[in-house]
Amino acid sequence: MAGTDGLIFRQLFEKESSTYTYLLADTESKEALLIDPVVETAERDANLCKDLGLRLVYGLNTHCHADHVTGTGKLKELVPGMKSVIAKAAGAKADMLVEHGEKIAFGKHSLEVRATPGHTDGCITFVLNGGTACFTGDAILIRGCGRTDFQGGNAAMLYTKVHEQIFSLPDTCNLYPAHDYKGMTSSTVLEEKTLNPRLTKTKEEFIELMNNLGLPYPKQIDRALPLNLMCGVQDII
Amino acid sequence: MAGTDGLIFRQLFEKESSTYTYLLADTESKEALLIDPVVETAERDANLCKDLGLRLVYGLNTHCHADHVTGTGKLKELVPGMKSVIAKAAGAKADMLVEHGEKIAFGKHSLEVRATPGHTDGCITFVLNGGTACFTGDAILIRGCGRTDFQGGNAAMLYTKVHEQIFSLPDTCNLYPAHDYKGMTSSTVLEEKTLNPRLTKTKEEFIELMNNLGLPYPKQIDRALPLNLMCGVQDII
Ligand SMILES: [Fe+2]
Ligand SMILES: [Fe+2]
Repeated sequence: MAGTDGLIFRQLFEKESSTYTYLLADTESKEALLIDPVVETAERDANLCKDLGLRLVYGLNTHCHADHVTGTGKLKELVPGMKSVIAKAAGAKADMLVEHGEKIAFGKHSLEVRATPGHTDGCITFVLNGGTACFTGDAILIRGCGRTDFQGGNAAMLYTKVHEQIFSLPDTCNLYPAHDYKGMTSSTVLEEKTLNPRLTKTKEEFIELMNNLGLPYPKQIDRALPLNLMCGVQDII
Repeated sequence: MAGTDGLIFRQLFEKESSTYTYLLADTESKEALLIDPVVETAERDANLCKDLGLRLVYGLNTHCHADHVTGTGKLKELVPGMKSVIAKAAGAKADMLVEHGEKIAFGKHSLEVRATPGHTDGCITFVLNGGTACFTGDAILIRGCGRTDFQGGNAAMLYTKVHEQIFSLPDTCNLYPAHDYKGMTSSTVLEEKTLNPRLTKTKEEFIELMNNLGLPYPKQIDRALPLNLMCGVQDII
């Protein structure tokens, strides 16, 4: 990623759910955070932090996932002191509940929280250092977007929020989603503004399309959702 | 990737063989090249070039792969004029056969060819812009390396070449392999120099280890190798 001196950045992939996890850290203070870690790869991610001499401070969730179990619970066990983070609007438990406009600092870098509901009612996008990169969760995917038919999903809202909060970022802003199923790893705001087959439609066409996708019930939802509402922390009884 | 103004860079993934393909292009001249494309994802890669307004000039193979069919043959059909490239030492057909020390230019950027045999006798590593990044094929993988038990493989040679040609690059040089099976997407020269469990051993220990891996015969080799010796071009009879 250009223009980001003193930043460590790693994209990581979990094959089963095709989820991308992102490691961001400051080279000087060694503070690190993970965006959307997955329980199956939590150990890999904790080891990478250790290998790189980093102190994992935050484990962030862009939203309450329905397709995989978040890694933030497991990571809290592996890395004592790490704080789990999710949007207040997600209605889930976490160490830190954030709202639109807040900033999460790590060393001299920061992530700005932008509310981008529509896929779920608690989706947030993280914007790095004023617009170098954005981590969009499932709000917008590469040439696609998250479904809007459950968990408080709302196609009209998603359309408005993506245009208002993500497409207003610099054209050059690198766009990193929570998933990709075709082996693409990143995009840019300009690319999605001009090439996204769904979000370049009119709002009315978009709503019509999203309300008629006829997708199957997510495979892992019954296992994942109750756990993710606790940020992956399994109560010890 | 820091310090690379005017460069377009994209990592791409093929799930079945866990192969990474890399798109590199110059923002001004729009000349593009692909490193290690896979036949199954050749269309995706050609479309991405088109979407980004790029002219695909070269399709490079780091070596004659045994685990998947190269995409360079299919890409030559999809993008007339694209030239396939492989090392002369690979003993395969291609439009351009390259040797150690040669440079492949695209716009104001260039890749230097470094001979890094050992996994196969025709393996090369591409070094970007004097050491910003290296594309190592299977010579070195993240915390691992390619097997050395067929196709002219030679553990002693691999050890020497990795140390001589790759570990001599700047510590900060980003390292991009042809495969990863654990969802890691990149590393650095410093990381592998200090953390690679195989290549931090002594040469004798490394040879001993590599000669006793007892790996199964590669699944796709009988299909892939004859095709890859033609750079994926299937003769029309
Ligand atoms: Fe989701
Ligand atoms: Fe190979």
